[in-house]
Amino acid sequence: MSVFDELDPLFHPHSVAVAGVSGKERDWGGGNMFVRALQLAGFPGPIYPVNPRVDEFAGMKFFPSVRAIPGPVDYVISSVPSSGVLALLDDCVANGVRAVHFFTAGFRETGDVERAELEQQVLAKARAGGVRIIGPNCMGLYVPASRLSFGDDFPMREGPVAFISQSGLNAEEVVRYAPLRGVYFSKVVSIGNAVDLNESDFFEYCAEDPDTAIIASYLEGIKDSGRYRRALDKASAAKPVIILKGGATGAGTRAANSHTGSLAGSYAIWSGLARQANVVSVQTLEQLDDMAATFRFLGPLSGPGVAIIGVGGGVSVLAADAAERAGLPVPPIPPDLQTELREFIPIAGSSVRNPLDTHAVHDHGQFLKLTGILSRAPEIHNLIAIARVDWAFGRPNTDMDAFLAQLVKTCVEGQQEARRPLAVALTAPAKPEVMDAMLRFQSMAAAAGLAVYPTVQRALEAIALAWPWYRDRAERGLPQWQMPAPLVPAV
Amino acid sequence: MSVFDELDPLFHPHSVAVAGVSGKERDWGGGNMFVRALQLAGFPGPIYPVNPRVDEFAGMKFFPSVRAIPGPVDYVISSVPSSGVLALLDDCVANGVRAVHFFTAGFRETGDVERAELEQQVLAKARAGGVRIIGPNCMGLYVPASRLSFGDDFPMREGPVAFISQSGLNAEEVVRYAPLRGVYFSKVVSIGNAVDLNESDFFEYCAEDPDTAIIASYLEGIKDSGRYRRALDKASAAKPVIILKGGATGAGTRAANSHTGSLAGSYAIWSGLARQANVVSVQTLEQLDDMAATFRFLGPLSGPGVAIIGVGGGVSVLAADAAERAGLPVPPIPPDLQTELREFIPIAGSSVRNPLDTHAVHDHGQFLKLTGILSRAPEIHNLIAIARVDWAFGRPNTDMDAFLAQLVKTCVEGQQEARRPLAVALTAPAKPEVMDAMLRFQSMAAAAGLAVYPTVQRALEAIALAWPWYRDRAERGLPQWQMPAPLVPAV
Repeated sequence: MSVFDELDPLFHPHSVAVAGVSGKERDWGGGNMFVRALQLAGFPGPIYPVNPRVDEFAGMKFFPSVRAIPGPVDYVISSVPSSGVLALLDDCVANGVRAVHFFTAGFRETGDVERAELEQQVLAKARAGGVRIIGPNCMGLYVPASRLSFGDDFPMREGPVAFISQSGLNAEEVVRYAPLRGVYFSKVVSIGNAVDLNESDFFEYCAEDPDTAIIASYLEGIKDSGRYRRALDKASAAKPVIILKGGATGAGTRAANSHTGSLAGSYAIWSGLARQANVVSVQTLEQLDDMAATFRFLGPLSGPGVAIIGVGGGVSVLAADAAERAGLPVPPIPPDLQTELREFIPIAGSSVRNPLDTHAVHDHGQFLKLTGILSRAPEIHNLIAIARVDWAFGRPNTDMDAFLAQLVKTCVEGQQEARRPLAVALTAPAKPEVMDAMLRFQSMAAAAGLAVYPTVQRALEAIALAWPWYRDRAERGLPQWQMPAPLVPAV
Repeated sequence: MSVFDELDPLFHPHSVAVAGVSGKERDWGGGNMFVRALQLAGFPGPIYPVNPRVDEFAGMKFFPSVRAIPGPVDYVISSVPSSGVLALLDDCVANGVRAVHFFTAGFRETGDVERAELEQQVLAKARAGGVRIIGPNCMGLYVPASRLSFGDDFPMREGPVAFISQSGLNAEEVVRYAPLRGVYFSKVVSIGNAVDLNESDFFEYCAEDPDTAIIASYLEGIKDSGRYRRALDKASAAKPVIILKGGATGAGTRAANSHTGSLAGSYAIWSGLARQANVVSVQTLEQLDDMAATFRFLGPLSGPGVAIIGVGGGVSVLAADAAERAGLPVPPIPPDLQTELREFIPIAGSSVRNPLDTHAVHDHGQFLKLTGILSRAPEIHNLIAIARVDWAFGRPNTDMDAFLAQLVKTCVEGQQEARRPLAVALTAPAKPEVMDAMLRFQSMAAAAGLAVYPTVQRALEAIALAWPWYRDRAERGLPQWQMPAPLVPAV
């Protein structure tokens, strides 16, 4: 059986038991949290809370053990203390459970020899009983299509990005921020200590998963580097793979050891592996989000040259510096095209050289003229438009929704006019009401297929990471990648 | 007369004329903008709008020219087109005006020879007539103590930071964001093309200004490098100087030339100058804000070692990687202190090695125990506490103001307990209501004297830039710097 065929049912359980639900009011930890998350997600099958000391709570009948549950249980979430995990596994084997997610922590990652041994006993018992393990010491699965979630507020909308994370909290962060720019998920797996199912299993799965177009990952350690390399090569040949490697330094490696018991190994070896596989390697969760948004919305990219269109001379200078630092050329606009631009852009307080210091993005007609002219600049491969959503606030009588809709329309049509990818760069909001408008803008922009970035610097860094990926792919003779049409929802 | 004595009156005018006020409804540009900003700031002296084609508008009597204004005029803001600037200067000389700020653009920065010549004529006429010039092509002065402002929404609260900016928009950005963390300004000067008064004048002024404890600057070009070097040395010996140099790359230099006509010169020479003067050199406006907040609230620093206290294993790993990349050691907590910490921090799901993966900052008693123990770790010079303001939102029945006040109290007392600087690191808000709570937290924290950073990475980078400044200062035999007591307002 292929890894895909073996793992796919795990993402689609029909019934879930949660072991270690306290059944106490105002208890936000452990088992209660998972039950609430599944309920809020609208999990359609039965959810069985398990606790031998509780009969009933909040209208739910409790079960004394997994063994005592009458019907079949596909998936068990364990929030029992580590002292109870072997007994729990016996019950799971008896019930024919397919997989257990151990939220339970306190194993190898503590550095304690006995606890590391207990982890090995758990693995042996699971293998003997035919039960697969996710974790321990992790948050488990978020699968919108199956209404499976480990967060109260995770969206139930499906999307094309899979995220394999060795940290549950980092997974939560990504699930919290990415959707603000229209990036949604097929599967998110928090793998923790990954004693049984590990990164290689999930990479192999995602490489074949038709619901996954982009694979992102936060990893601390690699279990079996030979197998992982094969899984990575396979995944990366099929789709963009973005990896944030935690434990890139001595201090980070020590922290990874305390966190998931990972022996991070040499970062140099890891980097070589990533380069060989044409993996997009990032250093922060923000960059990981940016790259997911970039592959989801911006590509395909055909070169590194950028035109930066926005307001402010100082802003232009800093953006140009940031572009060159990121390795992207900011080619001067050819003189004949500058002359054409000067026909409608006044000379005082502006520039048409590149960066283009102009208010054009806030003027539909001007912006279309400008982008039409830039379509004839051969060294400009990408546009970045700096949109000042916040400026609509200083002006009385502005209909904000109309302003935002117009801005989206201008950017979409400008992108078509330029026949080049156009990234929209924002500026950090200084007030909650500005943030509110920006979030509305981001959601409208995503619905229209635009890639939006919080700052021009982050847009530049994203292009600087994405362009080599497209180039190297072509150099390897692989077909140009773009978002598979079935995964692009109709607007 | 010293530069300080000559310039100081410019920051405290008793009357202002604004030339080029259109007197039209819904005109947000130029002269109207400056009149409105002065009115909203509550400028106490007369504000004279000048336009020969308007008699009266919005209850204000207009004057046909600066010459026609009956009383003395200390300061003139010019929003007339460049074609009208020589005539305006004649009127200013006739009226005995001390200084003119030319918002007017369209001079040397256009690259046009005639316009560059016009700029020189303006300078010659001003010199002959004894009028000083700010600009042209800039936003002028923001001086809360004098109720002088070029922004509608600039705070009128005074603070210890001066900002000298060759870009008006960059000045606006800094004035918009810095106060959110309790950083306020003594003077902000947008200098544009700086044809007369330039960066050296303002650095010399700020070096002596008793209201300025910290000098920040955005610069594109240097007018007279010999004089500037002396001004910089003088300023930097007296107080922290933070400089963002625009035009650090080829593309940035071209943009700076289009923006303020600056010939940026070699960035290598600039960097050498900055190093020699022990200037804190930054690459983005965000870093500039961070450094102003750091000198305002965090110091003095006594070493590079950091303890990172926060929640989440993956967060800890990434923070440790970021620390080491920034050049800061994350020393393991000594074993005997780890044993003490383990007495109240449970082993499962946490770490006490460093980073300290614990919820302690949200538990007053625990955090004080923890910081007390860290006070005995000799290699830990600084603490970073990761505060999750957003987590209060998931929990029902949380009194947000009480939660925020408790968090501030915990951090303040933890800092005292640790006898080390403590930086508070937040996480980007994903919702407007979370942003609102964060802003309230930031303002309460600033009132209590805490340094707050938007992310742990930015806190680390700020410490990594500030510590060498303190060290180099000591190595030069200069007295340890700290915020002058008269400039720290009572809470």
